[in-house]
Amino acid sequence: MGLQLFTNATEFRLACEQVRCAGNTLGLVPTMGALHSGHAALIRTAATRSTHVAVSIFVNPTQFGPNEDFNRYPRTLEKDTECCEAAGAVMVFAPSALEMYPAGESTRVSVSGLTAGLCGTSRPGHFDGVATIVTKFFVLAGACTAVFGKKDYQQLKVIERFAKDLLLPVRIVGHPIVREPDGLALSSRNAYLSAQERAQALGIVRGLSSAFCAFKAGLRQPIALVETAVAELNRHGLVPQYVSLVDADTLEPMGDRPVTDRALLAVAALCGRTRLIDNVVLGEDPDPLPANA
Amino acid sequence: MGLQLFTNATEFRLACEQVRCAGNTLGLVPTMGALHSGHAALIRTAATRSTHVAVSIFVNPTQFGPNEDFNRYPRTLEKDTECCEAAGAVMVFAPSALEMYPAGESTRVSVSGLTAGLCGTSRPGHFDGVATIVTKFFVLAGACTAVFGKKDYQQLKVIERFAKDLLLPVRIVGHPIVREPDGLALSSRNAYLSAQERAQALGIVRGLSSAFCAFKAGLRQPIALVETAVAELNRHGLVPQYVSLVDADTLEPMGDRPVTDRALLAVAALCGRTRLIDNVVLGEDPDPLPANA
Repeated sequence: MGLQLFTNATEFRLACEQVRCAGNTLGLVPTMGALHSGHAALIRTAATRSTHVAVSIFVNPTQFGPNEDFNRYPRTLEKDTECCEAAGAVMVFAPSALEMYPAGESTRVSVSGLTAGLCGTSRPGHFDGVATIVTKFFVLAGACTAVFGKKDYQQLKVIERFAKDLLLPVRIVGHPIVREPDGLALSSRNAYLSAQERAQALGIVRGLSSAFCAFKAGLRQPIALVETAVAELNRHGLVPQYVSLVDADTLEPMGDRPVTDRALLAVAALCGRTRLIDNVVLGEDPDPLPANA
Repeated sequence: MGLQLFTNATEFRLACEQVRCAGNTLGLVPTMGALHSGHAALIRTAATRSTHVAVSIFVNPTQFGPNEDFNRYPRTLEKDTECCEAAGAVMVFAPSALEMYPAGESTRVSVSGLTAGLCGTSRPGHFDGVATIVTKFFVLAGACTAVFGKKDYQQLKVIERFAKDLLLPVRIVGHPIVREPDGLALSSRNAYLSAQERAQALGIVRGLSSAFCAFKAGLRQPIALVETAVAELNRHGLVPQYVSLVDADTLEPMGDRPVTDRALLAVAALCGRTRLIDNVVLGEDPDPLPANA
């Protein structure tokens, strides 16, 4: 079965409908392209849960702030379609901006609450852009199982929320973070890093791992857990944008409430000009630092 | 063919899918119930354009302001279902608030630009509530033709906008305003009017008709057209919330630009405690006042 490439929204919608009409099931992996092994893992997971997997590739302008990297974000469509096919996708939807945002467009989907902290603070409007574009992909795809990476943990929670609220017939699956052998979380933005920044960037996962180990050893005080991670980031010369311990479901700050069962420790840090994020759910996830790293 | 009544969203979605799967077409008429002959006309129109018509009946809490009439809004489900069946509908979807707004819901669909003036000014948040709930009905119904009355002209424009922007597979049809023999636009809120208020309320359509006649006679200055309508409203003891002449597509105020082809003259006025709206598209619609009124 070859790969079908769509650029027209209506044609993509009809192809998705045909999958279901033929008695098959649809998997969807929305991406911004610049695909790496993390995306390939999402596609393979989608393929275990549905007979036909579609990947959307679209660098969504509305989720970038005015001073962010929309223009320099890597665009590698040819390589991406090869990656999709190799991982088991049968459809790629790579629309133009005008296809997804018709002339005069003025509609936004927004989620309150979950978007107030973490990346919502440093990237105002970002999650409105995400919720708007992913709603459109869900509307086009129709009933499907959609797979998203947990590296963008807040994004995953936001998507789960609006999919439920808007009654979209989509089952959302979160996929564990895929990491390099040394622990760095895979990200299309890692391509921006110089050799020195690449070394520095390890401070993020090492910070998360320090907190993980402290938690495992019995530490439950949010401020102490956060400080453990921050110390490791600083040791690598990284200035965190945030290091936050929050409720893993509501994303509300733990404040000084000791962690009773689980909590999300989330980090955003600038590594040179490159903004990286990573996280671990304490009390649930394994050590983010690989055993032999 | 009897009428099927649904309260569960998933069951309604499946029934809509079955209509299409059987090779038929779906019409949708979203309402807040308290159905009158205007709604019946929408249902009959939907029935001329699709083989199966569904009517949703839901008094949507999020489109009412804190001091508006959500609690006293008339609820007449039994009579409504009879009206639906008589007008040719085969499905009624009357969900609970929890069915449409799941626990913890925090998602809104909003349209900028079109919602800035007219009712958007006096009813902040109203159109977010409308866009959010109608998006959900469109998501549930899937591909269909949806019919809305032009009395809520701004609402119709907002719905056309987000349906296009969110790539929803819905054809939107606007239905001409249905009026009482004396010209009053049909509205569920007319039930609130005392006999005296009912007489006063005629000032609205008479104001629109005065402007219509002046336009027909050659008047093109927005301020003069608006003043013609306002004078008639005042003569009936009505205090208008707004009387506005705006571009019929963008809803932007005409300012002092003379009307070249067409423009929307829109009115909102309090009649006692009851807020009524009405409109005419000068250069397009016939005289809103019936010939023998």
